[in-house]
Amino acid sequence: MSKSRFPFFLSFITLLGFSSQIFAQWEALPEKAPAPADNPTTAAKVELGRSLFFDPRLSSTGTVSCNSCHNVMLGGEDNRPVAMGVHGKTGGRSAPTVWNSAFNSSQFWDGRAKSLEEQALGPITNPIEMGLKNHTVAINRVRAIKAYTPMFKKAFGGKNPVTIDNVAKAIAAYERTLITPNSPYDRYVKGDKSALSAQQVKGMKAFAELGCSGCHSGPAFSGPAMAPGTGFFMKFPTYSKNEYVKKYDLMADKGRGDKHEWKVPTLRNIALTAPYFHNGKVDTLEEAVRVMARTQLNKKLTHAQVEELVAFLQALTGEFPAQPMPRLPSTDGWTFTSK
Amino acid sequence: MSKSRFPFFLSFITLLGFSSQIFAQWEALPEKAPAPADNPTTAAKVELGRSLFFDPRLSSTGTVSCNSCHNVMLGGEDNRPVAMGVHGKTGGRSAPTVWNSAFNSSQFWDGRAKSLEEQALGPITNPIEMGLKNHTVAINRVRAIKAYTPMFKKAFGGKNPVTIDNVAKAIAAYERTLITPNSPYDRYVKGDKSALSAQQVKGMKAFAELGCSGCHSGPAFSGPAMAPGTGFFMKFPTYSKNEYVKKYDLMADKGRGDKHEWKVPTLRNIALTAPYFHNGKVDTLEEAVRVMARTQLNKKLTHAQVEELVAFLQALTGEFPAQPMPRLPSTDGWTFTSK
Repeated sequence: MSKSRFPFFLSFITLLGFSSQIFAQWEALPEKAPAPADNPTTAAKVELGRSLFFDPRLSSTGTVSCNSCHNVMLGGEDNRPVAMGVHGKTGGRSAPTVWNSAFNSSQFWDGRAKSLEEQALGPITNPIEMGLKNHTVAINRVRAIKAYTPMFKKAFGGKNPVTIDNVAKAIAAYERTLITPNSPYDRYVKGDKSALSAQQVKGMKAFAELGCSGCHSGPAFSGPAMAPGTGFFMKFPTYSKNEYVKKYDLMADKGRGDKHEWKVPTLRNIALTAPYFHNGKVDTLEEAVRVMARTQLNKKLTHAQVEELVAFLQALTGEFPAQPMPRLPSTDGWTFTSK
Repeated sequence: MSKSRFPFFLSFITLLGFSSQIFAQWEALPEKAPAPADNPTTAAKVELGRSLFFDPRLSSTGTVSCNSCHNVMLGGEDNRPVAMGVHGKTGGRSAPTVWNSAFNSSQFWDGRAKSLEEQALGPITNPIEMGLKNHTVAINRVRAIKAYTPMFKKAFGGKNPVTIDNVAKAIAAYERTLITPNSPYDRYVKGDKSALSAQQVKGMKAFAELGCSGCHSGPAFSGPAMAPGTGFFMKFPTYSKNEYVKKYDLMADKGRGDKHEWKVPTLRNIALTAPYFHNGKVDTLEEAVRVMARTQLNKKLTHAQVEELVAFLQALTGEFPAQPMPRLPSTDGWTFTSK
């Protein structure tokens, strides 16, 4: 027994140490995202990726682009409860923000994609998202738009660079540029004590003391640093016997492995991405804060606490880098509907 | 009799003179569009209008913006046969290009709107386009997104500038900046004789000699200069006893006043806006040229003539001005779906 107790005790100490470290460790958002060794970020890839990201011809109807649900002109998603794809079809989950998604160690709500590259190809052939039959159809569309070919050559070189894998790499490279640094929180952490209001500072302390930062840690508030592809998951709801779980139907979707586990989402720019949670059923940030406190920490907050936490979360809205509107490679006297 | 014949004879001469004048008169596209006296184009209006143009929250589902069907990243439309609005709904007509629409003296295929301002408000409440119930719902959405208010104040001044009329004015002001000058054709007309290939010059001559320029005249190839709101309409098809009319169902939609009259559309950037005609049933520019020659001029073209005309039409693709991606005013911790 003592042999088995010893490591347990040690890990408990470690956990305590880990937690107190998190409480103390406020990190600013890096201005650059790491890229995988086989897909370094280059200007040519980013430019190509931006065009692909905004190109609705990557959907069966020609009406849905990556940007339709992950709108970079907004908070990186669609402000809708659940995403709406071709023919107005909807699924059960809310579109996660593309801003700062480069800092997620896994992608999708259930973390089923290990990288941005892997994620990028999912929606294109999802029948309720972009709805193309398969990736062959997708890449044939891109090949048919001949003006894309020189862009792929510039970005990837080689003889036949217009491949679906390079589509994924280019989109991922573009997404790695979608970072929103210099939020009031970041400026505060870097030493500008005037960047947060007194109410926001109170909210920041409450965020740590109540335990929010137990999961929403790290520079993106999406968990501790993990190896790419690992993912950081939590059970949600943890406390399920309360009015919110029923009211907002929080257990209908069983999440990762049917265990009600979900990727801990970033809180960066959270004020811009209502409605909230995997099913998008909670309309306001105030209510989202109350729901989280009750379902994850088994706590009921005072009105003042809610206001303070919301004020702090609003301080996580960063600066969105200016970018040019892409000019999409055009077809020449024909249309994709005829191919 | 002689009294009535004389004016007829005169007007015949006038018509001949008018036609030969058109044949001779090749005009470059102006770099600026005229604006109505009550809506001068200003930078603040253009910036606001750009945001509104790209804002999908102006539709019932939050998925369809002006740009969805009039995609300025492409040729100003959607490359689809007919536009697709909320819930995947479609109508019977193809989305016209927004590029250079400032030079149309009336708007919509049937010219039912006298101005860009009048046009802009139509799709917002069309149940198969943006699908909002009425303009009150629309303006309430815009008012609820509080970050829009300072933009309206800057653009229009006054106490309560967030009105549906100002939405229309701002969108129209933005659209008046969507001009594509300096096409190879424009450079040729301005004196650069190397701007067109020999084949394109042949096509240009054929365009005049065959009679295309009888209707597609003026700098935008959409008819002669007309007072704003007048519109320039032609019967289409004029010659209806041919295989194309049946094959492409060209008479099902009776157009303006149920008389098969249609606004003469611009040919600027026509190579980018397939498929063609009011119903979008013709996939390629080659076929569109054959159809027009047969239905409007009662002529069958040789293969070489078609190629020359298409080459000329490709020379009407202009330069698209670079523009910034708009950052849409955000909601703050709530979403439009809850309002």
